[in-house]
Amino acid sequence: MRIKIGILGYGNLGRGVECAIRQNPDMELKAVFTRRNPADVAILTETATVCPVSEAEKWKDELDVLILCGGSATDLPVQTPRYAELFNVVDSFDTHAKIPEHFANVDAAAQKGGRTAVISVGWDPGMFSLNRMYANAILPEGSDYTFWGRGVSQGHSDAVRRIAGVKDARQYTIPVESALAAVRAGENPELSTRQKHTRECFVVAEEGADLAGIEKEIKTMPNYFADYDTVVHFISEEELKRDHSGIPHGGLVLRSGTTGWENEKRHLIEYSLKLDSNPEFTASVIIAYARAAYRLSQEGASGCKTVFDIAPAYLSAKSGEELRASLL
Amino acid sequence: MRIKIGILGYGNLGRGVECAIRQNPDMELKAVFTRRNPADVAILTETATVCPVSEAEKWKDELDVLILCGGSATDLPVQTPRYAELFNVVDSFDTHAKIPEHFANVDAAAQKGGRTAVISVGWDPGMFSLNRMYANAILPEGSDYTFWGRGVSQGHSDAVRRIAGVKDARQYTIPVESALAAVRAGENPELSTRQKHTRECFVVAEEGADLAGIEKEIKTMPNYFADYDTVVHFISEEELKRDHSGIPHGGLVLRSGTTGWENEKRHLIEYSLKLDSNPEFTASVIIAYARAAYRLSQEGASGCKTVFDIAPAYLSAKSGEELRASLL
Repeated sequence: MRIKIGILGYGNLGRGVECAIRQNPDMELKAVFTRRNPADVAILTETATVCPVSEAEKWKDELDVLILCGGSATDLPVQTPRYAELFNVVDSFDTHAKIPEHFANVDAAAQKGGRTAVISVGWDPGMFSLNRMYANAILPEGSDYTFWGRGVSQGHSDAVRRIAGVKDARQYTIPVESALAAVRAGENPELSTRQKHTRECFVVAEEGADLAGIEKEIKTMPNYFADYDTVVHFISEEELKRDHSGIPHGGLVLRSGTTGWENEKRHLIEYSLKLDSNPEFTASVIIAYARAAYRLSQEGASGCKTVFDIAPAYLSAKSGEELRASLL
Repeated sequence: MRIKIGILGYGNLGRGVECAIRQNPDMELKAVFTRRNPADVAILTETATVCPVSEAEKWKDELDVLILCGGSATDLPVQTPRYAELFNVVDSFDTHAKIPEHFANVDAAAQKGGRTAVISVGWDPGMFSLNRMYANAILPEGSDYTFWGRGVSQGHSDAVRRIAGVKDARQYTIPVESALAAVRAGENPELSTRQKHTRECFVVAEEGADLAGIEKEIKTMPNYFADYDTVVHFISEEELKRDHSGIPHGGLVLRSGTTGWENEKRHLIEYSLKLDSNPEFTASVIIAYARAAYRLSQEGASGCKTVFDIAPAYLSAKSGEELRASLL
């Protein structure tokens, strides 16, 4: 009996979840729910069904876990509480500041329905959060650092695209090497926003556009760019397509701490990710937590959980005996 | 009410545990149990008692967790099952091949006594195991690599010391940079023992000893050195004391894997540790799991657990709300 999975929302993340399921023989994709016309949505899995999202609720006894692949801004705050009452669910809600509120809403719904929900799964929040937490528990005296990149920021790319005269754009977030070196050297630097990351934009301008004006508008844009050193490159549409069509990302979590009676010994814990595809890696983390959600639910658990609340063994298809013998 | 801790065995690890307790205000050291004459054992914590190990059992209702700081070869296989029946315990049993047997023995004892035991806690086994396991669950298609060092191997140092004509010695295990670079480049190399690590020995010879003979005996020693490229330096006793009295260690766990419908996307997960003091870092991990053992026991759990079986939040002194707000 394989774990029966549904996907709600079939964009980059939904497709990534579909691919991840294929790598896990104990799971199968049963249905994809879409807001588009199902006839227009071509999925990769021949044995799964594409349904309108309005029919999702009818599947509540057919699926073991429903993966919610919508966006954090407007989709998930509504969808996760709604479906957590009917299904075991996993989402990748990533608006860090609103996680407590989202947790409370989802928890109430999942408790009511007797289901297990896992929120904020992916790499940040997700694997980066786990590494921050473990490192803090192990080294209570120390400093935390998170660096993102080199990778594409969708939000910043969109912000550049909204500028008049910009046809298309891709923005990369890049850690500042000297800052990283100072952290690794145990200097515990206090780093400003500008000192931690630079931003690099590849912009396709419309013909006859004011390039200097666009560059200035990018570099002075509040919140998105004004606090960073930003480099702007104008390139052709062909170059953008050829060199910047991927969605790579990654980053590092570091904790630099001390031990000893007089804090005389230094330690550095570093976790890093280099990802060819941000959505596919996020999807792979989600699928491991879908297994956990299913098992917890089988054990009678209900309510909302995060990566902090789930014992690692629940993520693996291997038994406790196998894990102890092969990976401990 | 602080968590009351006992330490059994007061060597480098036991002293590290004592220091780690001081960094965690929700814990206090109550007693140290030693096989030596208690009058000869000077501990750092003024409020704790030093007792002969024969009296440990009398403390069974006075301690929340007993930390077993003996060696894996002969101490822990006897001590952990024995004390797991009476106390919640944590050990750092690190003979990987014998973990399944140790787990079974400790589990039976802890079940019988209604106590919680956590075995094989530290960084390898321990944090490295966790990272291997998470990375395998997330990227089921990929290759695992563990590198150790640069750091002092106690076992290899001891092996060199046993050679006739050797007064003292320190052995460092060092990852081969080119092998690490190939892994990071996603080449998924198959690496022999020799290709992964080199060994570097600093040897103080007795006066008039046959240096060439010692060097040859080291380099051809089965299991310890014969399968590695080994460099031997003869130094003075003063140099050894000045430059090699620390116990640094560390290493890296990497998983290189693929995602996508045709496995066309590559990802690299890397976890690394750089530790000034191997025993103090191990002790810091142990103390976080001591908190977990105490809490699990309070919840009514019993039996043997490993790092795979314990939800991360149990390690932290922070509440779930605090963790979600600050570290997720």
